Amino acid sequence: MSDAFPHLESVVKEIADEMRQRPDRGEVATYIPELARADAKAFGLVVIDADGNVAAGGDSEVPFSIQSISKVFTLTLALGKIGDRLWRHVGREPSGSPFNSIVQLENERGIPRNPFINAGAIAVTDQILSGHQPREALGEILRFMQFVADDPSITIDEAVAASEQRTGFRNIALANYMKAFCVLDNPADYTLGVYFHHCAIAMSCRQLAMAGRFLVHQGRVAKNGSSVVQAERARRINAIMLMCGHYDGSGEFAYRVGLPGKSGVGGGILAIAPGKASIAVWSPGLDHSGNSHLGRIALETLTKRLGWSIFGA
Amino acid sequence: MSDAFPHLESVVKEIADEMRQRPDRGEVATYIPELARADAKAFGLVVIDADGNVAAGGDSEVPFSIQSISKVFTLTLALGKIGDRLWRHVGREPSGSPFNSIVQLENERGIPRNPFINAGAIAVTDQILSGHQPREALGEILRFMQFVADDPSITIDEAVAASEQRTGFRNIALANYMKAFCVLDNPADYTLGVYFHHCAIAMSCRQLAMAGRFLVHQGRVAKNGSSVVQAERARRINAIMLMCGHYDGSGEFAYRVGLPGKSGVGGGILAIAPGKASIAVWSPGLDHSGNSHLGRIALETLTKRLGWSIFGA
Amino acid sequence: MSDAFPHLESVVKEIADEMRQRPDRGEVATYIPELARADAKAFGLVVIDADGNVAAGGDSEVPFSIQSISKVFTLTLALGKIGDRLWRHVGREPSGSPFNSIVQLENERGIPRNPFINAGAIAVTDQILSGHQPREALGEILRFMQFVADDPSITIDEAVAASEQRTGFRNIALANYMKAFCVLDNPADYTLGVYFHHCAIAMSCRQLAMAGRFLVHQGRVAKNGSSVVQAERARRINAIMLMCGHYDGSGEFAYRVGLPGKSGVGGGILAIAPGKASIAVWSPGLDHSGNSHLGRIALETLTKRLGWSIFGA
Amino acid sequence: MSDAFPHLESVVKEIADEMRQRPDRGEVATYIPELARADAKAFGLVVIDADGNVAAGGDSEVPFSIQSISKVFTLTLALGKIGDRLWRHVGREPSGSPFNSIVQLENERGIPRNPFINAGAIAVTDQILSGHQPREALGEILRFMQFVADDPSITIDEAVAASEQRTGFRNIALANYMKAFCVLDNPADYTLGVYFHHCAIAMSCRQLAMAGRFLVHQGRVAKNGSSVVQAERARRINAIMLMCGHYDGSGEFAYRVGLPGKSGVGGGILAIAPGKASIAVWSPGLDHSGNSHLGRIALETLTKRLGWSIFGA
Repeated sequence: MSDAFPHLESVVKEIADEMRQRPDRGEVATYIPELARADAKAFGLVVIDADGNVAAGGDSEVPFSIQSISKVFTLTLALGKIGDRLWRHVGREPSGSPFNSIVQLENERGIPRNPFINAGAIAVTDQILSGHQPREALGEILRFMQFVADDPSITIDEAVAASEQRTGFRNIALANYMKAFCVLDNPADYTLGVYFHHCAIAMSCRQLAMAGRFLVHQGRVAKNGSSVVQAERARRINAIMLMCGHYDGSGEFAYRVGLPGKSGVGGGILAIAPGKASIAVWSPGLDHSGNSHLGRIALETLTKRLGWSIFGA
Repeated sequence: MSDAFPHLESVVKEIADEMRQRPDRGEVATYIPELARADAKAFGLVVIDADGNVAAGGDSEVPFSIQSISKVFTLTLALGKIGDRLWRHVGREPSGSPFNSIVQLENERGIPRNPFINAGAIAVTDQILSGHQPREALGEILRFMQFVADDPSITIDEAVAASEQRTGFRNIALANYMKAFCVLDNPADYTLGVYFHHCAIAMSCRQLAMAGRFLVHQGRVAKNGSSVVQAERARRINAIMLMCGHYDGSGEFAYRVGLPGKSGVGGGILAIAPGKASIAVWSPGLDHSGNSHLGRIALETLTKRLGWSIFGA
Repeated sequence: MSDAFPHLESVVKEIADEMRQRPDRGEVATYIPELARADAKAFGLVVIDADGNVAAGGDSEVPFSIQSISKVFTLTLALGKIGDRLWRHVGREPSGSPFNSIVQLENERGIPRNPFINAGAIAVTDQILSGHQPREALGEILRFMQFVADDPSITIDEAVAASEQRTGFRNIALANYMKAFCVLDNPADYTLGVYFHHCAIAMSCRQLAMAGRFLVHQGRVAKNGSSVVQAERARRINAIMLMCGHYDGSGEFAYRVGLPGKSGVGGGILAIAPGKASIAVWSPGLDHSGNSHLGRIALETLTKRLGWSIFGA
Repeated sequence: MSDAFPHLESVVKEIADEMRQRPDRGEVATYIPELARADAKAFGLVVIDADGNVAAGGDSEVPFSIQSISKVFTLTLALGKIGDRLWRHVGREPSGSPFNSIVQLENERGIPRNPFINAGAIAVTDQILSGHQPREALGEILRFMQFVADDPSITIDEAVAASEQRTGFRNIALANYMKAFCVLDNPADYTLGVYFHHCAIAMSCRQLAMAGRFLVHQGRVAKNGSSVVQAERARRINAIMLMCGHYDGSGEFAYRVGLPGKSGVGGGILAIAPGKASIAVWSPGLDHSGNSHLGRIALETLTKRLGWSIFGA
């Protein structure tokens, strides 16, 4: 039981119950069959507080495709490898509408706006890949995820990766567009191979909340735990999550939830209450911006009840 | 002397001294002569903490043209008048590049992306104006500013307003573009008249920091002071400031400073450390995104030294 | 009776009859009530051949609002006044989609792509205006039209002009956008006043076909008639008409009709068969690109039957 | 000696001489080494009149890389194979600025604006490929070119094709972007393989002028020669050449030269004077729109001296 937040467990259970009963669920992503098969009724929520207490509700142990949430971890890894040189290949400004991604590549010399839009995440992956074989780079990403989540059982869903690779024409276009501007260093199909695979990592809410802890504790896995990144870097990753973590719904998420977060089209969201908790939620139905519909509502409810908004307790 | 932050006063003095000695000052805005005349060497900083202690450094009493910072207050006022109906006329997503403002009006049925880009602030002003004469609406805005700053001496610089009105072709274009989509309710020149005038309000750092207090204290002017807006609304205004407060440099400001803030081309920035302090800084030289160059650096230094980033203490 | 085209009169009558019987008529422009009142069943066609023979069919004597067709004549007039200096204020490339007009102003320093999109025509009008009062400039345009049409009875429909002026927010936006880039020399409302009025000139098909003759005869009103412009200039105006004369349907018009032409939202089209004939057609129903639906079909039929395409007899 | 144009041969020689002496030559394309090696001083001009007389000047027998000029022939071939169904995959409107190509794909559901911008030519090639192996499709294109030029010696420059394929990231991006919208039927690398190879066809001015004859004679290779396409189709291909044949310089070419034409970055231009002549010119230096600088000037001079503009003799 959490000392700092004595009712945490009951709040989490309550929210999981409320969410299960809501009829509005958004639309499950259908662009690949593996995602389309997800159960629209699934809902999971896990909160790990500053003392390491775990409060879980709903389908908290069911693995799902984390998709774009992996971009938080590849960003962390790439910054660890090459530091601020990363910013020569990708910006850190919000991107406006999805419409803009390719227009802004054209206008801004092939440099994607931030590490969380597809083009930007591909550019980040390309930097992790440099000097390695795709298989090695992918191994490094997976091992990093297992390390921060403290769970060696995390794996990649190969069927999802293969499906993405078969149908990812828009990502192939983005990668080659960046190649035309010399923003990528490696062959586009190498970089995309790694990218499609790390987006296909499967994790449960519990595993994901574990993986997010270093962003709660100024870069450490726990209050006095081992350091993953420096405090300043953890803060800055949180800042980028807040600004750019929910596609064209980032403003809406900041406005309603008030926490740094990153969503994926698999229906997961990782949210960070700095100094307070790491939170993972999952519900496959998406809103019109491509973010988990119930996931966002659950997080809005949670931050309100616990007073966790970074914009004023 | 501040109890919560015992060294606040000395930190503020130190930063003011450091900033005065820096040779890099950015470029003073020159599009109207009244702004071009500003002293590039000026620098002021005022922090008012949660207990109401005031720490001031540099040119803290010199009035300057607050320009776009006024948009925080017109947003607050408009939300108070018509509540969430405001969001029919303006969005709350970051806007990407300045390039996008007019493109996105075209793509998004004339609805500006957020209340802090020019088009959005014009749409907000239009809602304050509705049912009133321009002079009345302007009086209401000015009185609101005097009220939140607790200072009836705040005035509008008529020369600045007149200059803006003479040369504001781009804003006239934006307003008429929105008229074409029926997003504005009033004659464009009425709305623009009010808009140009509220951007021309002149305030010192001290007055501005005073005016920002209600965003620190969940909508109250002081810890147990009178309420300006509800707590949730204050949080949400802070969220919009973080996402959209610095034009195309909003991501950079979040990344480096980690506080909600709003800048103006007059060189001022209002920043809010929720629960901790209201901060106003002024230095007329601008960076390439149009935000005060030294102002941003001073705020970055301040939040680092005091551990005030909302992304992790 | 025409010597060069002995069947011209019967071809014109036939086409007028065929067009009257077609059920498909497009949509009459409704953005101002004066245009919305036009009779969707109206159809007129006049061809004046190289020898000055006039073949008329349908409602050939009914005046209609020529709207954008006036831009051919303001272009001619502006080139006469300031020659190639005009091209500092406007380009002569096709503009792609209507979507682009404002985007390209942004991208291309406020210089409109060509004299036939609204922004470009406003820039041309601004050059005619320079040094004059709006009333004088408008008088000059009207007198030029009366001269080339050899008909002093042509007038401006003041009700149309007033309506356009009341609702022309998009044009006001375009004009002010160009002002922001210093592309216009005169006050925007002066230039727009002249612009809205010359678009409101009312002419019949017969008058319009008369007015187009100088583009048939290398700049002369008839084979050996008086010269309006030099031969090279007449050719070049024809070239611009072909490239840019039908908004986003210019490619379609060139592909199907194969003649330089200029349409207006009043449902009129002026088409030129160089060396052969000046043609005016009118039917108020518009296609999705804003060009007269039956007008275009009539011209396609006419050029096929007479072998008048400039792309191969 | 030409009967219709008795001075044709001397005019061609004169122009070739004048061009050789001009110091302004534009910039040779350098994006692949094979093109960069072209002699900036080279100039060739061949005119074949309606009677089949050939007038040649300068380097009229030197083969060069025809690049985008091949798109005229793939368009002709694709229309012959699937007729107007082609227009489901590509439009026929001018494209505005090069900037627009990818933006308009985004805005217009992946349908390229016309068959002469890269995306459009790739879509056309994709339709020729359908049901065939790349090698077969390429063979068909080459044989068609040999047939219309009446010259079985025309070949593909494999070094150019290989170089394009290695560096053509932007084209790979465009093709995959269209794949994302289901506009292409075949694997992108198959389609691009054929595309890069037909752009690498090498021809002399004489061969190219021969190949263009069917566009002069309403679809026949000579006045009473065998038919390549129907008369209407030949006219329409000419129309598309006029509207879209010179990238963002199409308006300029129509304005100055007044003939349908298609240029390539190898420095060649094929121009058609309907009913009068097929013209090929070559000079490797390009203007800022990517069209042969001297080639355009030579054609402007030629049409003026011979009165061949389609916009008025």
